[in-house]
Amino acid sequence: MNFHKLPAGVQDVLPGEYYNLSLLEERLKEKFRLAGCRFVQSSALEYYDTFAEIRNRIPQGNMFKMTDGDGALLVLRPDMTLAVSRIAATKLRDTRVRLAYVGEVWNSAEGTGNLSQREVLQAGVEFLGEEGAFSDARIIAFAVECMRAAGLDDFTVDVGHVGFFKGLLSGAGLGEADAERLRACIDAKDTIGAAMLLKNSGVGGRAAEAVQALPSLFGGEEVFARAERLTDDVTALGALEHLKKVHALLKQFGCDKYVSFDLGTVKSLSYYSGIVFTGLTKALGAPVLSGGRYDMLADDFGKHIPAVGFAMGLKRILMALERGGKMQAPPPPYAVVLAKEGCEAAAYAEYRKLTAEGKTADLYTGGYEEGLEYARARGARVVLAATEKGVEKI
Amino acid sequence: MNFHKLPAGVQDVLPGEYYNLSLLEERLKEKFRLAGCRFVQSSALEYYDTFAEIRNRIPQGNMFKMTDGDGALLVLRPDMTLAVSRIAATKLRDTRVRLAYVGEVWNSAEGTGNLSQREVLQAGVEFLGEEGAFSDARIIAFAVECMRAAGLDDFTVDVGHVGFFKGLLSGAGLGEADAERLRACIDAKDTIGAAMLLKNSGVGGRAAEAVQALPSLFGGEEVFARAERLTDDVTALGALEHLKKVHALLKQFGCDKYVSFDLGTVKSLSYYSGIVFTGLTKALGAPVLSGGRYDMLADDFGKHIPAVGFAMGLKRILMALERGGKMQAPPPPYAVVLAKEGCEAAAYAEYRKLTAEGKTADLYTGGYEEGLEYARARGARVVLAATEKGVEKI
Repeated sequence: MNFHKLPAGVQDVLPGEYYNLSLLEERLKEKFRLAGCRFVQSSALEYYDTFAEIRNRIPQGNMFKMTDGDGALLVLRPDMTLAVSRIAATKLRDTRVRLAYVGEVWNSAEGTGNLSQREVLQAGVEFLGEEGAFSDARIIAFAVECMRAAGLDDFTVDVGHVGFFKGLLSGAGLGEADAERLRACIDAKDTIGAAMLLKNSGVGGRAAEAVQALPSLFGGEEVFARAERLTDDVTALGALEHLKKVHALLKQFGCDKYVSFDLGTVKSLSYYSGIVFTGLTKALGAPVLSGGRYDMLADDFGKHIPAVGFAMGLKRILMALERGGKMQAPPPPYAVVLAKEGCEAAAYAEYRKLTAEGKTADLYTGGYEEGLEYARARGARVVLAATEKGVEKI
Repeated sequence: MNFHKLPAGVQDVLPGEYYNLSLLEERLKEKFRLAGCRFVQSSALEYYDTFAEIRNRIPQGNMFKMTDGDGALLVLRPDMTLAVSRIAATKLRDTRVRLAYVGEVWNSAEGTGNLSQREVLQAGVEFLGEEGAFSDARIIAFAVECMRAAGLDDFTVDVGHVGFFKGLLSGAGLGEADAERLRACIDAKDTIGAAMLLKNSGVGGRAAEAVQALPSLFGGEEVFARAERLTDDVTALGALEHLKKVHALLKQFGCDKYVSFDLGTVKSLSYYSGIVFTGLTKALGAPVLSGGRYDMLADDFGKHIPAVGFAMGLKRILMALERGGKMQAPPPPYAVVLAKEGCEAAAYAEYRKLTAEGKTADLYTGGYEEGLEYARARGARVVLAATEKGVEKI
């Protein structure tokens, strides 16, 4: 039996980690708040249909599923952007709004490694009702601001555009399943797999060359010129034009040193419709931020709301901070207050006085001698004892 | 299909409610922190066995259950005290510690009314490694402090002791199932049901009289004298003696005006072993705080840790505050910053400057004219526009 253990891929957060997680969460929430965001929280339990029966569905195998009392299938929230989009489309009057959240998403398909979590605590924003290059540059700049606010320094935000990949494929005549397999190869920078898939599908010529070049199309603005030479598809070229505009704005904002371009960034979530971006830290070698534009997603919930947003993985960021030696120790209490028998009320009054002054005071309710040891173990700055003679420092 | 709806008994938290929920949460977290608490967070997903295969089990029908990939049964955390006890017994070296948490618990058996939630956001504390009347008085006083910190005024904390009920029953020879049925009757103040059950079980005489008197044994300290006359069971009388000591301390602490006694408080959770208490507000007529002593619970996880704690239901408290007219409107942003085409960088710089000063600034990325309307709708104090002439107030 499994009394004491936890299922694979989930963890308890113990006090030291909680303290640092809270600091991180507060910094990001303050950043979101100052940028004009309002916060929402969706329920952890939702109907399966909300995530599986829409056009931009979450793969069935990724969701934790339960049956409700009435037989309806429920899931643990697998994606926050979908949940926020549902809220915006069905519950908010004003759909031109910046929303933010802090909450978990669950993915049953993830593994058990340190970086592979099935319960992921995310903080994120969704900027709803806006579109265009200024909006895209603004969210990327905000991602950079938030990475810095999180305490990260050695990071990049890699920017791509789903239109480029879609454009390259548009003339190739690939079916949906093959296109998805190809996307997975490109995303994993698996050029051999991509080449075989293209060959087996009978895709050759310029389109095949361009697709195979995708995994190497990353770097600074020089990427755009290389990419332009690969195709004359209108959609693909349009995506490049858009990225150039976004890049020009980021340069003006002074953010371009944190930004690079990666046209091989082809995310699995099908709802992305424009720019996509990923925040990476050198310390971790794994994404800590992920986002993009999803102009058609709210259509699934009955309203057209162009939107762009990102989510940050708080525990991964904490790991990056830990590797950078940036974890802080929780401060010890200011005081431990002890009471000799019969002097409990004086000790309680002292605790009340100290906490009213904003000082941490731990009122010890056990024996006096043990209490001295307790205060030492907690590292309290002062130990106060209530005795017949009143309250005094010891 | 259920695209847009949520399952029964769960809700989204929209911006206005979120704002007030955050204020409440911050006030309570600050209170917990000042009292020397350290925070922990358990995983929402746990093994079924952790909650169902221990002595103090949670009823099977109350839990949301899922099957993991390997066939193991998982549940959504049905109880925070159990989770914290598991953490303390299996992961903390120091078991004399005050722990606190904010998080959801899920109960699949709850209904769909306003007060009956299946996803309950709780903030609570567990004071581990302490026992005795001082410890009990201290946690009840802390419950009073927290109710006040939450913004409630018209409330009481009703205190009972499971030893009194257990003592009354000890000589009656009731089986476990009948004792549980009787407990449920007493808890619901269903005297007729209790009388029938006692009669059918062949329990008569003084014990039956005493049990039937339980639902009326509430009020101030005068309850103790009435209760003493009902029994000469040692356990029951010991519980009363203990409550008298706790009451005397609460009087010295100046908290007694918020406290009343209710010997008919016999909670369903089987892990309670001593005092039990419930915080009630007049505005709501339903518990917003619940707690008690559970000295044997950690034994289930391999360590003996006497402990006492309570949890507060944040959404219920919010309802009570709402009925008391105490909800606050989220403040509008200080500034909305607009940009004429070509002046995006100046607008971005202005947003950066304002937020660095701690002012909320919403950088609008859409058209200039729409932006004026947006700023009006958001109620911004100032509207700033970046044009060829620089940034100016409009």
